[in-house]
Amino acid sequence: MAAITYEHIKTCKQSGARLGIVHTPHGSFETPMFMPVGTLATVKTMSPEDLKDMGAKIILSNTYHLWLRPGNEIIKEAGGLHRFMNWDRPILTDSGGFQVFSLSDMRKITEEGVEFRNHLNGERLFLTPEKCMEIQNDLGPDIMMAFDECPPYPAEYDYLKASVERTSRWAERCLKAHKRPEDQGLFGIVQGGEYEDLRRQSAEDLISLDFPGYAVGGLSVGEPKEVMNRVLEFTTPLLPADKPRYLMGVGSPDSLVDGSIRGIDMFDCVLPTRIARNGTLMTSTGRLVVRNAKYARDYRPLDENCDCHVCQNYSRAYIRHLVKCGETFGFRLTTYHNLYFLLKLMENIRQAIREDRLLDYREEFFEAYGFNKPDAKNF
Amino acid sequence: MAAITYEHIKTCKQSGARLGIVHTPHGSFETPMFMPVGTLATVKTMSPEDLKDMGAKIILSNTYHLWLRPGNEIIKEAGGLHRFMNWDRPILTDSGGFQVFSLSDMRKITEEGVEFRNHLNGERLFLTPEKCMEIQNDLGPDIMMAFDECPPYPAEYDYLKASVERTSRWAERCLKAHKRPEDQGLFGIVQGGEYEDLRRQSAEDLISLDFPGYAVGGLSVGEPKEVMNRVLEFTTPLLPADKPRYLMGVGSPDSLVDGSIRGIDMFDCVLPTRIARNGTLMTSTGRLVVRNAKYARDYRPLDENCDCHVCQNYSRAYIRHLVKCGETFGFRLTTYHNLYFLLKLMENIRQAIREDRLLDYREEFFEAYGFNKPDAKNF
Repeated sequence: MAAITYEHIKTCKQSGARLGIVHTPHGSFETPMFMPVGTLATVKTMSPEDLKDMGAKIILSNTYHLWLRPGNEIIKEAGGLHRFMNWDRPILTDSGGFQVFSLSDMRKITEEGVEFRNHLNGERLFLTPEKCMEIQNDLGPDIMMAFDECPPYPAEYDYLKASVERTSRWAERCLKAHKRPEDQGLFGIVQGGEYEDLRRQSAEDLISLDFPGYAVGGLSVGEPKEVMNRVLEFTTPLLPADKPRYLMGVGSPDSLVDGSIRGIDMFDCVLPTRIARNGTLMTSTGRLVVRNAKYARDYRPLDENCDCHVCQNYSRAYIRHLVKCGETFGFRLTTYHNLYFLLKLMENIRQAIREDRLLDYREEFFEAYGFNKPDAKNF
Repeated sequence: MAAITYEHIKTCKQSGARLGIVHTPHGSFETPMFMPVGTLATVKTMSPEDLKDMGAKIILSNTYHLWLRPGNEIIKEAGGLHRFMNWDRPILTDSGGFQVFSLSDMRKITEEGVEFRNHLNGERLFLTPEKCMEIQNDLGPDIMMAFDECPPYPAEYDYLKASVERTSRWAERCLKAHKRPEDQGLFGIVQGGEYEDLRRQSAEDLISLDFPGYAVGGLSVGEPKEVMNRVLEFTTPLLPADKPRYLMGVGSPDSLVDGSIRGIDMFDCVLPTRIARNGTLMTSTGRLVVRNAKYARDYRPLDENCDCHVCQNYSRAYIRHLVKCGETFGFRLTTYHNLYFLLKLMENIRQAIREDRLLDYREEFFEAYGFNKPDAKNF
């Protein structure tokens, strides 16, 4: 029995969106689903109880960060990441590939792997597909990601082609090095930038290796939304219908809807938690920057249409006060609300698929949020 | 009916410790009791649910800080402090006197009040007994504190005598200016430094004004523990037996026991929450600095004898990792544990009073914690 299986329930008649269930050793979750990010074995400011309370079914954590601190051996000794952080639902860890390419200077890519500097202390480190698997086998998440190169946007065709081919060879090495396939499912990552033939080549290479799931990588790295949507339109049809599809690093509300429409099942992003710590909220009527002076005497909830614990019990005035004073509890409240907002959005997306009306839902949601305005921000 | 009443249950046969119940408009709590400090309308890192879960029955908030941010008018408009911060149990606010004297430079004391600089922006401010009452009437706590001068330690006898007399005149002005005596109980603050005759004079002045409760102020300001205990020994017998007695700013475990033995009913201090944010824990076997390298692979709970939520679910290794990374959730866990530890200590103290064995309990507790060692730290 594979560690990870995908159960398809239905496809929306208005779009390519899929309603499904992903089964893992730590339980199942409906898709499309958003995964809150817990980089350092904690979703910043949240407790496991908070996450369960808001309806989080799976969280993501970070191979690169946990390798550096506290180290995979310590987490292994603790009984694995689930026990270490007291989270008994599914966990996905990324491969560290993105962080190696985004956080560290002086990286050097060879066929063997990537040499780079620890972003904390400058120490030289070397990450290979085999090392990446060893770390993720130690961490013990339900879903592991293959070690890939995440190229910048834009990148030259020739560079991308060589990169895609190397990523495929690395994917094969990952599969060979993976020691616990019965406990942990390893996903391959389709790269290829905005080039259809490279995405096809990448997808075919990886499908031939038969991973239990596939991610679309290398998006949300600075390209326009139109490019992301176009790449998804020609990439997701290449992927097997009986495996989950994960769009990495995407979490703005509009992209969650647009990605679902194009057949994506799983998403993750630091956006909701990061902007929360800056006092920026996602609400049913658009973005709300609670630091603004106009909220000083506003005793309404963050979102008047929200039934989350924060909106039921706290006012904009109180949350603004906490955020302005740098009080941690303020960031707990804003983080909770933003994650709840996205998890609820995913629930609404699933319901719209069930009712074959995801395109209609998109129009309603975009209109209310303000995404249809010419000056609409990304979130 | 007075807003605040004290119900005496029994006095320990081994000491002067009192078991009692304080009744307030927002519910009752057993004494001796420790009050967690929520300076800016939040007990740093904690939610109201966390506080209830750990057994907090009353919290303290800060007149001076809330006057500056967000301002008492905003809290009044929000429906008062209870509603503003979503805490429906009793609240006590201090008078701001201590903060005026400890946080601000260039203060100038006159009969009218104190002129000083806002510690945030340098703005000139003037606090009087009348203004202090106005702010606290706006905030709406169950227990208000009279505006007093908290002199430094040591202070000259003559200075202290003049200060005590002025504090008595200010107390009378507070009582006159207090607009909501049926909703909020105003406590007087006994000053007088280490001088028995000044403490007596202060107590007699205030008792003649018939406050519903009395605090002992001006302690825990740098004097040796012996001085604090001696002052309590001659001061608490001066106070009415049918009113609660509150020792301000004291929260080290040894002082909570020693204060209870000397007839104190209520305590508050930032110590447990402040040291928690530095990774320092109170445990049944003494102080534990979880940042230390020796805890990196220690998978035991913070306190092996503790039944709190943190000790039941998280290891020293995990908490050390979070604290070292500056992750907020680490400070939630350490704060929760320290507050739980002190609330549990107070429960043990109450049980020992019930069983007429508080001096025996003191010996056991001090021995286990290490307070009997020659190099014992204060906490």
